[in-house]
Amino acid sequence: MHAPPPPQSVLISEVGPRDGLQNARAIMPTEAKCRWITALAAAGLREIEVGSFVRPDRVPQLADTAEVVAHALTLPGLTVAVLAPNAKGAERAIAAGAHKITVPVSASRAHALANVGMTPEQSVEALRAICALRDAAPEARRPAVEGGVSTAFGCTLQGAVPEADVVRLAEAMVAAGADEVALSDTTGMGNPAQVKRLVRAVRAAIGDRLTGVHLHDTRGLALANAFAAWEEGIGTFDGALAGLGGCPFAPGASGNAVTEDLVSMFHDLGVETGVDLDRLLAARAILAEALPGEALHGAAARWRKAAA
Amino acid sequence: MHAPPPPQSVLISEVGPRDGLQNARAIMPTEAKCRWITALAAAGLREIEVGSFVRPDRVPQLADTAEVVAHALTLPGLTVAVLAPNAKGAERAIAAGAHKITVPVSASRAHALANVGMTPEQSVEALRAICALRDAAPEARRPAVEGGVSTAFGCTLQGAVPEADVVRLAEAMVAAGADEVALSDTTGMGNPAQVKRLVRAVRAAIGDRLTGVHLHDTRGLALANAFAAWEEGIGTFDGALAGLGGCPFAPGASGNAVTEDLVSMFHDLGVETGVDLDRLLAARAILAEALPGEALHGAAARWRKAAA
Repeated sequence: MHAPPPPQSVLISEVGPRDGLQNARAIMPTEAKCRWITALAAAGLREIEVGSFVRPDRVPQLADTAEVVAHALTLPGLTVAVLAPNAKGAERAIAAGAHKITVPVSASRAHALANVGMTPEQSVEALRAICALRDAAPEARRPAVEGGVSTAFGCTLQGAVPEADVVRLAEAMVAAGADEVALSDTTGMGNPAQVKRLVRAVRAAIGDRLTGVHLHDTRGLALANAFAAWEEGIGTFDGALAGLGGCPFAPGASGNAVTEDLVSMFHDLGVETGVDLDRLLAARAILAEALPGEALHGAAARWRKAAA
Repeated sequence: MHAPPPPQSVLISEVGPRDGLQNARAIMPTEAKCRWITALAAAGLREIEVGSFVRPDRVPQLADTAEVVAHALTLPGLTVAVLAPNAKGAERAIAAGAHKITVPVSASRAHALANVGMTPEQSVEALRAICALRDAAPEARRPAVEGGVSTAFGCTLQGAVPEADVVRLAEAMVAAGADEVALSDTTGMGNPAQVKRLVRAVRAAIGDRLTGVHLHDTRGLALANAFAAWEEGIGTFDGALAGLGGCPFAPGASGNAVTEDLVSMFHDLGVETGVDLDRLLAARAILAEALPGEALHGAAARWRKAAA
């Protein structure tokens, strides 16, 4: 399949309330999460991953996900996404009314076991079960299911992840019923040439089911990798406000791509995001207040202030 | 002229002792500068811009450039570069024995006047005079002359800089005798699509006299811009250890591309730099000691530590 041209508008999908928080030191109060999500939506973000239906004893930070989903559903036009690693979590997501369920499956066996306690094959079976739940749900509550290929660009536990493993996993996700597939650089080990190669290889296998990339900024390459993916026709980019995040089960990984820097880059490129950068930057104040001591990253927060 | 393929080895040119220091709060002692340059060369850097022959009352930080050049000339295999904006500075550079003189000419009239007190046209005449000094120098002391197009990607004083102005200036530099030309994103306003366009346009005008890019990380795009330039066949990249720098005469501009992150990225891409990343990172200790209170930037310093 030929690469589509670089899209002239992109979807910035905020994952801060899920991926950003799961590694934060403090527990963010539900009320602050809801205010944060409201501010993000008001800035123009159209999709937010607001939480995760996992075992609350494993990720206490996200134990209030059902409440947060209920709040997010009141925000007009917002796609409310959640993460669920298994059918049990997906049942709770559907009951809560989430519009989209992201199911992570790691291409690295070591990370898969550390992250969700399942082999990649078991996780693909869980994805299949989740797709069955989706199909059985009443139409008004039927979520989209996204397969997220974790550690697609390398793994701090396993080391290199063969591209063939990523392609095979993406194919298995589509065969299991995933509506869309995203490639996650969970550990931030990817480089832009690799992003281009892998996007081409996965697109050759699953076509336009490949929709997005989820990047981390461990090596300072999140924006370079996003640009490379965009040049290859990718149109959905995960980010976390202030670059919050890191994976507790992937040592050495650091924060997510900084949402506001993604927005700034795409605006510089003349690409529409629908996001108001200044309103987005203003939402950082909620993090500063509700997550005391947490490092807030990002270039836009500095240069916009200097330019003001 | 057709774009050459992305080079399989690149030259990382360290500009920290010049561009990094001119915005630092503290004056770095000459002895520390010399130790720093020795450490950089020992890590494998083959070209270092060690100072600037400008008026010492304007940039007191670099008043010891002749001494620093004398030290750098003792390091085997090192290309010792200096900046000089006019013939008077170039005379001192040649007398000191510098191997290379970089002559900055701003494509933005407002920045040109603020930075060196000359119009771009006057600076091109200064470049021509410097090339005459080069040609008159005895062969053993004959430096290479590089024209550096400042604010090639935008200017915080003037705003947008038309690409035609950059192309015309690059042509004028070659006509004035410059051996090579580099494009400088002095204010860090460039984006990777723009980098590709401008590299193509300037190469169409001056061919392989266009050798390098000088990037700043104001918007977090220095690595993305470096990757874009590399994809277009550029083989020389300026950087400053720990991302020191910023231009005192360009408000809102921030540090240089982080040398160690450039090295890390190119190694990830499978491109040779000749630099030992760990030895390079170790040189940061000299900055921490000799520039107390200065922010040291960079991703490699964090993730290599976490991975160790």
